[in-house]
Amino acid sequence: MLGNILNTDAKYIAEQLAFYGMSCYRQTVLGDNVDRVANEIISASKRADILILTGGLGPTADDVTRAAVAKAFNLPLEKDDASVSHIQEYFDKAGRTLSGNNLVQAYFPEGATVLENSWGTANAFTLEVDDTKVFVLPGPPRELTPMFDKFVAPTLQRLSGAHFAKHQIRCFGMWESAVEEKILSYTKDYTNPTVGIYAGCGEVMLQVTSRAETADGAEALAAPVVEDIANRLGDAVYGIDVPSLEVRVLDMLKDKGKVLATAESCTGGLVAKRITDLAGASSAFGYGFITYSNDAKVKLLGVSEETLNAHGAVSPETALEMARGALKVSGADIAVSLTGIAGPGGGSEGKPVGTVWVAVCANGEESVSNIALYRPGADREYIRRYASSYALNAVRKALEKM
Amino acid sequence: MLGNILNTDAKYIAEQLAFYGMSCYRQTVLGDNVDRVANEIISASKRADILILTGGLGPTADDVTRAAVAKAFNLPLEKDDASVSHIQEYFDKAGRTLSGNNLVQAYFPEGATVLENSWGTANAFTLEVDDTKVFVLPGPPRELTPMFDKFVAPTLQRLSGAHFAKHQIRCFGMWESAVEEKILSYTKDYTNPTVGIYAGCGEVMLQVTSRAETADGAEALAAPVVEDIANRLGDAVYGIDVPSLEVRVLDMLKDKGKVLATAESCTGGLVAKRITDLAGASSAFGYGFITYSNDAKVKLLGVSEETLNAHGAVSPETALEMARGALKVSGADIAVSLTGIAGPGGGSEGKPVGTVWVAVCANGEESVSNIALYRPGADREYIRRYASSYALNAVRKALEKM
Repeated sequence: MLGNILNTDAKYIAEQLAFYGMSCYRQTVLGDNVDRVANEIISASKRADILILTGGLGPTADDVTRAAVAKAFNLPLEKDDASVSHIQEYFDKAGRTLSGNNLVQAYFPEGATVLENSWGTANAFTLEVDDTKVFVLPGPPRELTPMFDKFVAPTLQRLSGAHFAKHQIRCFGMWESAVEEKILSYTKDYTNPTVGIYAGCGEVMLQVTSRAETADGAEALAAPVVEDIANRLGDAVYGIDVPSLEVRVLDMLKDKGKVLATAESCTGGLVAKRITDLAGASSAFGYGFITYSNDAKVKLLGVSEETLNAHGAVSPETALEMARGALKVSGADIAVSLTGIAGPGGGSEGKPVGTVWVAVCANGEESVSNIALYRPGADREYIRRYASSYALNAVRKALEKM
Repeated sequence: MLGNILNTDAKYIAEQLAFYGMSCYRQTVLGDNVDRVANEIISASKRADILILTGGLGPTADDVTRAAVAKAFNLPLEKDDASVSHIQEYFDKAGRTLSGNNLVQAYFPEGATVLENSWGTANAFTLEVDDTKVFVLPGPPRELTPMFDKFVAPTLQRLSGAHFAKHQIRCFGMWESAVEEKILSYTKDYTNPTVGIYAGCGEVMLQVTSRAETADGAEALAAPVVEDIANRLGDAVYGIDVPSLEVRVLDMLKDKGKVLATAESCTGGLVAKRITDLAGASSAFGYGFITYSNDAKVKLLGVSEETLNAHGAVSPETALEMARGALKVSGADIAVSLTGIAGPGGGSEGKPVGTVWVAVCANGEESVSNIALYRPGADREYIRRYASSYALNAVRKALEKM
């Protein structure tokens, strides 16, 4: 309510409800006030078959959800011994001392079923009042998401009485409008499967969702549409049912037994960060060079002073020498390099902000290409993110030939 | 309501309301249904002094806000000729042909004041009904934000009849409950200034907001509270009115004319990424080493094989040699290194997942410390983020002595 947190919980829950074919008519966000929350719970439970509450399960004075549910349904709060142990264990593991207010988290409205939270101290709970199913979940997204999947999703699946198939086709390097043009008939006219289109920072994701009486039936509806869309989009598609570019690249590296090295200037470690976000990256990634200064490009990667003087740090020549150097020093099978101007300063007429060169060296083959992100709205963050995705996609394309 | 859009409008408006000292008790999100929206407008206008609606002002059938406002307050919709011209001009400029339904955007409830939208076709409007001021603004953030600033903010400032001071105190390394214990009197009993507490991944942010008849008066109320809280939290405070740890570190590096080098294993470039997220990082950062493999630690940073064999890659000895190597190779003034087990695999009894060593070398001084993030919920992402913040905070502490 103070505008310091973006409500990603509401987005996640709405997305899941849509997936299970549940109509979501209303989201309400309230401040930490017992009476206002309790009154809204009373109204909402009269309107809705399912009421999902998130947040306010912490140990501090402003965490009021437990008390508000108890008040709304006129139920006493009772201590749950298993939750006391859960909290105690959590503190023991963390080597911290339990303070009195932490045990507030072990109290639940009478008749509630406690849902054990494996991702935090705050156990969740569910209860049914006058035919409304109420789920009360922790607020932090890293707890909310797995708790929702574990405890709420199965109920939604059961209530929906249908089976669903969902597939995601992911592309990089085509603009949303170009993708939409190629698949317009699907996004406009299809209701089962539906095809949703989501775009951001060079990526376009197409989601194909079908429903049928059986899982096989749903799959049979979705599969030919997925195949046709993938064919229409061709090489822009980097993966189907793959969560991200970095996952696709790491999977390919592992499958082919290849090792990647990175040499980054303008992205300052972002490509390596994205690869090492993934568990198991160490089998396919050992060396990353962040050569933000010219000095570092020369010293760590052997870029020649002549190249830097003649062409500048942001040039295809420098990008190529960076990738070659990374390959040589690391002994990796494939190296990718980036050098560019992320802005907001540092641009010039010949090399405006948004100029980035990406080189890939592998297997005796070399390639270098230019990204020209000169659009309004392409700020430093956008340029760095886009460039890192471009580099990962360039590695993906090179790996396809290896 | 389908989960495909994150509600950044609500965040922006809440932030602005908080700034002007307006209590925001409720945010409601509804689907495109005239009756449900109209009913909510009726209820909300009874509860609130100011009602801000966003979205649903487009030309298509699912844009129902105009009709819902008219229905809620029982007002006819009337054509506004200036808005017709506004829409026509917009289409002329874009070289597009106006279609009939676009003119829907020129109709407003009787008695409304039209607010011209310089950022899109949908003019906004405001009206006052039974002492409630109602603002109806376009939904796309790029239109909402400037329209809010232009038309709503001046009203809020006037209504508040007050001036505000807001300060943020940011800490790293104390848990939220420990921070709260030290400043409990402020969070519980103070209403002017108010003290809000926000926590995430090792960081705690305290927001002190005061109001008074003059700007100086507001400042005079806030300043002693900010000072006292900062004193109570001591060295955990890394900055006041500083947006992030990385900004604080980069500012200190620049102020002191020092250059940082990073040597990262488990964080895989995240520390360098955070520093280079910031424009102007190049004056204080030139070299980053990502030594994910043992081989890279030896080859790039000169970590000795003996150390790796005797103590392992995740050890204070290796962390120290990494930082020393980074300092030596880069010629920087200060180097920070991280080596640890981010999981989910790779842990052992002696070195469980969540074990991270951080070393700082600067100015002839060396330090090494252990992070033990053995809490449930501390997943790979959390451990990497926490460790990167810990490293930045260690650099901050070392810089304070330089």
